[in-house]
Amino acid sequence: MLESLNSPADLRKMRISELKILASEIRHLILDTVSENGGHLAPSFGTVELTLALYSIFDFDKDKIVWDVGHQAYTHKILTGRRDSFHTLRKFGGLTGFPKRSESPYDFFGVGHSSTSISAALGLLLAEEIQHKNGKVIAVIGDGALTGGEAFEALNHAGQLKKNLIVILNDNEMSIAKNVGALSEYLSEVRLNPQYRQAKKDFENFIKNLNLSDIGDKILNAAQSVRYGVKSAIVPGTIFEALGFTYIGPIDGHDIKVMQGIFSRVSELDEPVLIHVHTTKGKGYAPAEKSPEKFHGVGKFNKDTGEILKKPAPPTYTEIFSKAIVDCAKVNKKIVAITAAMPSGTGLKKFAEKFPDRFFDVGIAEEHAVTLAAGMAAGGLRPVVAIYSTFIQRAYDQILHDICLQNLPVIICLDRAGLVGEDGATHHGAFDMAFLRTIPNINILAPKDENELRQMFFAAVENEKPVAIRYPRGSGSGVEVDEIPQKLEWGKSEYILQVENPEVAIFAVGSMVSVAEKVAQILNFPVNVINARFVKPLDKNILSAETAKLFVTIEEGTLSGGYGAAIAEFLEDEKISTPLLRFGINDKFVEHGTRAELLNLCGLTAENIAEKILEVRNLGIRS
Amino acid sequence: MLESLNSPADLRKMRISELKILASEIRHLILDTVSENGGHLAPSFGTVELTLALYSIFDFDKDKIVWDVGHQAYTHKILTGRRDSFHTLRKFGGLTGFPKRSESPYDFFGVGHSSTSISAALGLLLAEEIQHKNGKVIAVIGDGALTGGEAFEALNHAGQLKKNLIVILNDNEMSIAKNVGALSEYLSEVRLNPQYRQAKKDFENFIKNLNLSDIGDKILNAAQSVRYGVKSAIVPGTIFEALGFTYIGPIDGHDIKVMQGIFSRVSELDEPVLIHVHTTKGKGYAPAEKSPEKFHGVGKFNKDTGEILKKPAPPTYTEIFSKAIVDCAKVNKKIVAITAAMPSGTGLKKFAEKFPDRFFDVGIAEEHAVTLAAGMAAGGLRPVVAIYSTFIQRAYDQILHDICLQNLPVIICLDRAGLVGEDGATHHGAFDMAFLRTIPNINILAPKDENELRQMFFAAVENEKPVAIRYPRGSGSGVEVDEIPQKLEWGKSEYILQVENPEVAIFAVGSMVSVAEKVAQILNFPVNVINARFVKPLDKNILSAETAKLFVTIEEGTLSGGYGAAIAEFLEDEKISTPLLRFGINDKFVEHGTRAELLNLCGLTAENIAEKILEVRNLGIRS
Repeated sequence: MLESLNSPADLRKMRISELKILASEIRHLILDTVSENGGHLAPSFGTVELTLALYSIFDFDKDKIVWDVGHQAYTHKILTGRRDSFHTLRKFGGLTGFPKRSESPYDFFGVGHSSTSISAALGLLLAEEIQHKNGKVIAVIGDGALTGGEAFEALNHAGQLKKNLIVILNDNEMSIAKNVGALSEYLSEVRLNPQYRQAKKDFENFIKNLNLSDIGDKILNAAQSVRYGVKSAIVPGTIFEALGFTYIGPIDGHDIKVMQGIFSRVSELDEPVLIHVHTTKGKGYAPAEKSPEKFHGVGKFNKDTGEILKKPAPPTYTEIFSKAIVDCAKVNKKIVAITAAMPSGTGLKKFAEKFPDRFFDVGIAEEHAVTLAAGMAAGGLRPVVAIYSTFIQRAYDQILHDICLQNLPVIICLDRAGLVGEDGATHHGAFDMAFLRTIPNINILAPKDENELRQMFFAAVENEKPVAIRYPRGSGSGVEVDEIPQKLEWGKSEYILQVENPEVAIFAVGSMVSVAEKVAQILNFPVNVINARFVKPLDKNILSAETAKLFVTIEEGTLSGGYGAAIAEFLEDEKISTPLLRFGINDKFVEHGTRAELLNLCGLTAENIAEKILEVRNLGIRS
Repeated sequence: MLESLNSPADLRKMRISELKILASEIRHLILDTVSENGGHLAPSFGTVELTLALYSIFDFDKDKIVWDVGHQAYTHKILTGRRDSFHTLRKFGGLTGFPKRSESPYDFFGVGHSSTSISAALGLLLAEEIQHKNGKVIAVIGDGALTGGEAFEALNHAGQLKKNLIVILNDNEMSIAKNVGALSEYLSEVRLNPQYRQAKKDFENFIKNLNLSDIGDKILNAAQSVRYGVKSAIVPGTIFEALGFTYIGPIDGHDIKVMQGIFSRVSELDEPVLIHVHTTKGKGYAPAEKSPEKFHGVGKFNKDTGEILKKPAPPTYTEIFSKAIVDCAKVNKKIVAITAAMPSGTGLKKFAEKFPDRFFDVGIAEEHAVTLAAGMAAGGLRPVVAIYSTFIQRAYDQILHDICLQNLPVIICLDRAGLVGEDGATHHGAFDMAFLRTIPNINILAPKDENELRQMFFAAVENEKPVAIRYPRGSGSGVEVDEIPQKLEWGKSEYILQVENPEVAIFAVGSMVSVAEKVAQILNFPVNVINARFVKPLDKNILSAETAKLFVTIEEGTLSGGYGAAIAEFLEDEKISTPLLRFGINDKFVEHGTRAELLNLCGLTAENIAEKILEVRNLGIRS
């Protein structure tokens, strides 16, 4: 079935029975690929029927679709000319894990970060209209992504414009973890309401089944029970109706026929529509249905048993952070922790278990997470916000305006800083040092290893300042971690290697310290190696005192405005004429691949750096 | 009355009749001050009674309040120890225009940017609870600020936590301009619903007046008229109820007694409450009631007539942009314009009048504005997003992830770049060059004068790239503006002064080009003056070819990572040993004052710069 598909248009001729066979074939292809390459299994398994239903009704040579986040779009990829290359998914040079405009004409808008789809889809729809075209535009957004403020901003705008934007709410009760927030509770109330569960097959049935006098009674009861309000959840979708959308649902997101009926009707309307589709994350693969969080984004696994194949490895930075915050919080009762929908990914799950009253999962809502922390700090607490580096980009203004302008002691822990590997361009934590460094009052730290992460976290708790600590994805080197960390001298860098009459001094940040050590081993002349520790404030003393004839910086982050740039500014300001050689990520977006492949691509290997240093030395260092 | 007030606690003893007299006295003090100093008259006139009612019920030596944006908080300032210094409002060294933690212990959280209050207030409330204190916490948020996504994120979280957070929705149907969005339409539907207008005095009345069978009929009618939905607006506040809040309102925000009744009851509840208060912007001052947008943030005016006292001045940069986009849009039908609630402030009002179908006011929603533009560009349009520099901080991630990663041709026009003057630390556009420069693919331009702004805008339309153009608040020099601009060479800087054997080359950005020219006049030796034009990409050719012995950069923006920093990076990377002297805003937040005072404070005057250049020259330039 799948082999015979040549274009997405073929799907519009298929019968339900054929689409069902196709669904099964697609699941096999995804399972075969993801069990080898890793990837977003559970989200994509949840949307197989939804995608097939969409492609069997809409004409995507004319119509357009935007997948929020895009981790649920593997079926879309397979149906749009990427079946035969699907085995390259997430591999260097292969298919990306997310829709991407340059990869396919059917990827109408690139995605990766959450909650952008309604805005982008509305933009595409307005572009159709203004250019006198009549393509339909659809946004598919999860109930998790819906908690991001941008999605609400877009609903509010779209609701007023009254165009036929079609929003499909893919409600699986999960983002990566179990969803939180009042909206999520509201949606499950809607889902579980028996009166409405049967009544969504098509519009006429929907109206026919509305028992209005019964509603009156329910309002009466609800009003009395809450004393002075009217509980709205008894009428499904009122929140979307209030925002100007016509609400339809909830409908079964694994019943292709039901979805086809709805989709073909809504595409004829002249108003914004939200279709509430209920899906099961991981649908059709028992291990993923059972543990959807584990199979959200997953590494290599045994497809028969669902067993994750993990090589034995030292603890991850995440695990080190996880223990450090729990240990500090036992002593310091003011420590509270905030995550934006990633209790596991950020390592806060243990904290949440130990200190449920001091743990806050705000949903996918990085802006609120940061201002909430600022409010808590203003109230005397010591909040820790743990967010992936790439997602903190959402909260630049809040870090500046709410934390740093008021100089409030919030600790921001940036996991997955630097190159994240297979998730690619949308997910690399390449910019944090550069954009955070523009903000007054902030302190930016990066540990060279796991032991230093613990040390830095303890120091950040001690020093009541705005602090960001960035550390990479995955395991460190497996160094021993001191239970009671040595005191960290605030603002001081550290010599890892200090020789007499150094020719070169290498200033390395975090993950690049070990690379710098290897560079020193390769070079057969005296080299100092400095662990920066602080990206901001710069340790100006060590820079001023260093006598090497060439300074080298290595950082796993963008060169435009990053750590090396800070040193360039310092050298120029202080009229220090020592030449500077900077290694980091060039002013370009980096694609996906293994971390090793990408470090190599960016020239961040000891061999490459040593070679470049030798070139400069052979040129006599100074021009 | 006002003179006898010694502490906010005094208000709790006052009778309604006394509070009414106080309200009048406060309005006089605000009017006297703002008509002299300028300021946010209309927002603060709208909240006099609301503030008095709050202070007469709550105990702010224990309870806490967060004012969203804070432009409505003048009464709060006057009541909390700042009556006698109120005449210094917005003056250099005087009171700030917004609540600020370092100014008063009653300013519990600093504000300035919109939509942060619910997050911050929730943080303060959780801090109370975790520290076993029992202060009440209130957020006062306008209906305009409510459209910002962060406010929704916070409501969603607070609704789930079920704590007694008190949110007062100060609904005046305006943000700065008339509000937009479906939520705004929804609120006016609620306000205008005659069935509920009477019914809000207290909870029992509210329930007593609910005619439930009538609701049943209304649902029936609504359901039939929309065919398959149930219009929710007939029950006020369902949207907030769905988010877990108990909704009360709408109530009259100028009736102190009604508000006192509600406030004293809600403070005893154990759940999140949203009180919908209806106020009139500018209330009590006829010219402001008539033209609330004009008196939102206003300069010096005649308090008797309401006539704005404007010195004759050349057209503003805003006006130049306003005409440029209209002129381009006449020819290029693909140009569309987006504002985030500032059609007048950004100069898009004329565009909106000429091209209503291509104009989009999205409300206070910078994130959505940027992704919407990216979607439009992906659909083939040429969107222009006009936002103040300080507010674009909200959309760093969207510029990076939605525009630049996809290299989409969106033009971002950043008005009020640099020091904005009296609005102070929260509003300076000091960071745009530095944080935007970290993003690959972006082009950052800054015009030296009004004529060049037009030229740059035309060039940005021609060149299909992601572009940001930054220009200052207020008038330029009054240069003549060419109707048909000269072609701008992309990426090229321009010599303003080019002499033989220059000792110094001054590279100046935008507003600082004229300062650089004055510096050259002061210095009695050969100086080149270069108009940077492009902050990114750097004009590397001009830098490489320049033979002066000292390079100087001047920019109205932060030195950390800004334009001068980009040149420092370049000089270091290229091993160019010419020393560099950088002028800009130090790595600190800048307070409020006139633009001239602040430029002086930051050392951005021709005299200071010339003096510093002379010092370096006397030292022999190189160390």
